[in-house]
Amino acid sequence: MKTLLLTREDVRAVAQHVGLDELMDEAIEALTLAFGQFDRSQTLTPVRSGFQYELPVPGLVEWMPAMSAGRAASIKLVGYHPTNPANRGLPTVLSTILTFDLETGHLTTLSDATFLTALRTGAASAVASSVLAASDTRTLGLLGCGAQAVTQLHAMSRLFDLERVLIHDTDTRVEASFAARAYGFGLPSAVAVTAAAPQTILAESDVVCTQTSVAPGAGPIVADVPTRAHLHVNAVGSDFPGKTELPRTLLERSLVVPDFRSQALHEGECQVLDPADLGPDLDEIVRDAVRYESHRASSTVFDSTGWALEDHVMIELLAAHARRLGLGQPVALEAIPEDPANPYEAMAQPRADDEPAPGRYVARA
Amino acid sequence: MKTLLLTREDVRAVAQHVGLDELMDEAIEALTLAFGQFDRSQTLTPVRSGFQYELPVPGLVEWMPAMSAGRAASIKLVGYHPTNPANRGLPTVLSTILTFDLETGHLTTLSDATFLTALRTGAASAVASSVLAASDTRTLGLLGCGAQAVTQLHAMSRLFDLERVLIHDTDTRVEASFAARAYGFGLPSAVAVTAAAPQTILAESDVVCTQTSVAPGAGPIVADVPTRAHLHVNAVGSDFPGKTELPRTLLERSLVVPDFRSQALHEGECQVLDPADLGPDLDEIVRDAVRYESHRASSTVFDSTGWALEDHVMIELLAAHARRLGLGQPVALEAIPEDPANPYEAMAQPRADDEPAPGRYVARA
Repeated sequence: MKTLLLTREDVRAVAQHVGLDELMDEAIEALTLAFGQFDRSQTLTPVRSGFQYELPVPGLVEWMPAMSAGRAASIKLVGYHPTNPANRGLPTVLSTILTFDLETGHLTTLSDATFLTALRTGAASAVASSVLAASDTRTLGLLGCGAQAVTQLHAMSRLFDLERVLIHDTDTRVEASFAARAYGFGLPSAVAVTAAAPQTILAESDVVCTQTSVAPGAGPIVADVPTRAHLHVNAVGSDFPGKTELPRTLLERSLVVPDFRSQALHEGECQVLDPADLGPDLDEIVRDAVRYESHRASSTVFDSTGWALEDHVMIELLAAHARRLGLGQPVALEAIPEDPANPYEAMAQPRADDEPAPGRYVARA
Repeated sequence: MKTLLLTREDVRAVAQHVGLDELMDEAIEALTLAFGQFDRSQTLTPVRSGFQYELPVPGLVEWMPAMSAGRAASIKLVGYHPTNPANRGLPTVLSTILTFDLETGHLTTLSDATFLTALRTGAASAVASSVLAASDTRTLGLLGCGAQAVTQLHAMSRLFDLERVLIHDTDTRVEASFAARAYGFGLPSAVAVTAAAPQTILAESDVVCTQTSVAPGAGPIVADVPTRAHLHVNAVGSDFPGKTELPRTLLERSLVVPDFRSQALHEGECQVLDPADLGPDLDEIVRDAVRYESHRASSTVFDSTGWALEDHVMIELLAAHARRLGLGQPVALEAIPEDPANPYEAMAQPRADDEPAPGRYVARA
């Protein structure tokens, strides 16, 4: 009984074999299906929990469990350390995901989830944008140009015929390096990438994605301005109590659609709103897209806090590709003795005489 | 940046190099220290949570997080599937543990925790017995002869000069195979292992350890009888809402000491008691053993639900041995690009011309 280990090299090999565009398309399709079929009696996604601290650096280690009843459980472990890029040259988010067989509790898969998290966060925004944004979206705005901005742009580029991308980051080096990263994954060179002020981005874009590391309490990241009537925002960065990115007035005049209501009220943009002022969850909109079609013409916000369901679906997708391609390393991880009642089997130092001590055992009469 | 992978073979190699007796002694010492120094402002152990289900089989997948502030976090994942031994030849408990660096969120260690769980559960009972049981304990009773009984006996044998061990299991094959497992790990052959009825065991033992898979609601596993005045019970099996092993009357006349009060009230023997009727937690008794010395002469129960602190300490011990012995496999698990802002770095299919598309980027004026 082995655990399939998927390291960064295996994840990379899957991405290279399948292709990033195809992988993103599959992710969008899989998430659309998962949102559309979501049934809270069959898929359990408890609100994530974690350790948050200020020392040794401000950070968070959290766990995101999910279970499809009768089938499989997964748990994603996430480190969020905003000082990583500047202090250590590491991504803000480091992540691992584990999947479990419900018949035995066996750990079936252990995989890097850093790449998967970026991919699914882009794909989730695509699911929301496909039902809430204007279909003829041409201008995309990106507030925050770090790792998550890459997959947001990629996902949007799979959905829309983009003409220009307006970008902004408070870190000018990150902003300046963004275009190379965008064209690097295959953004058509016809799409112009232009740095702009946050208010300009909010005013001129059809769709805006926000993915900053703004500190809790320091938001919003942009002042409110008159926007296009049909503006759709994918609010990605808000995922922590006190951390919000958007102006409250923008939220108040928009249909705000959370990925996962209870979590969004706790740590998303929704935390500044009265629960009664929230729109339906995204899964409801996906299931009944025709009913919500008219909202494409007005202001909408997808409050993407990052839902364990998305990770649960994505690791299934990734592991299926890995198995098909023969990638990953099967590891005999768990200590499973021949005799399930003997945890010490083969654990003792070999005896000199190879003979067990006789002992004195008196069985039941 | 790599993750140290400790498989069952690595854990076995640690056990064989260090020796089971030495490892158990170190575990008891480390847990005694951890209980004695426990400070809830410095070590966080949220009550564990999990998925519990009846299909496809009755089972539980749960997570047990712990953090020593400023130092490290760990999370143990546990599968509990009582049908495993009979249906699959697998242990009831399968488990894995992960540790995280708080400066970066990096996954430092991933290890089997099946062995570690059995070991620490024995060691925790030894910590409790060392302060609550009669020092001249000679007769040990074991109710339940599965995997956990092996390490309970081992731990007790490190603490006391045992003369006889009275055993009982509802599964006669498990009961009949126990002595071979006990002498197999090195129980002195002078110690007699004798099968007996549960009431006889409760009546005649100085210390009793209970570790059964009794179904929730089906307890107690033994009827109350007059016991030795100084009886100490390590109640190990009760770790689930509704699952209790001991007669209520025995609990009511004993000093009941939980490992972790809030968890014990939820899923331990303590769930049948009024919170006001609980004794102090074990960490308090370890810190102030002289004050509680008199309780050795009267009836005491250690309600061992399994505390994340114990796993947190044990993986540190195990990983230190592995590093010292050069065991374990360093794995580049997490996708860490050279540019922390580019999750797609090296993920794209290699271009034919090796030249990135030029694109059109307009920087800020």
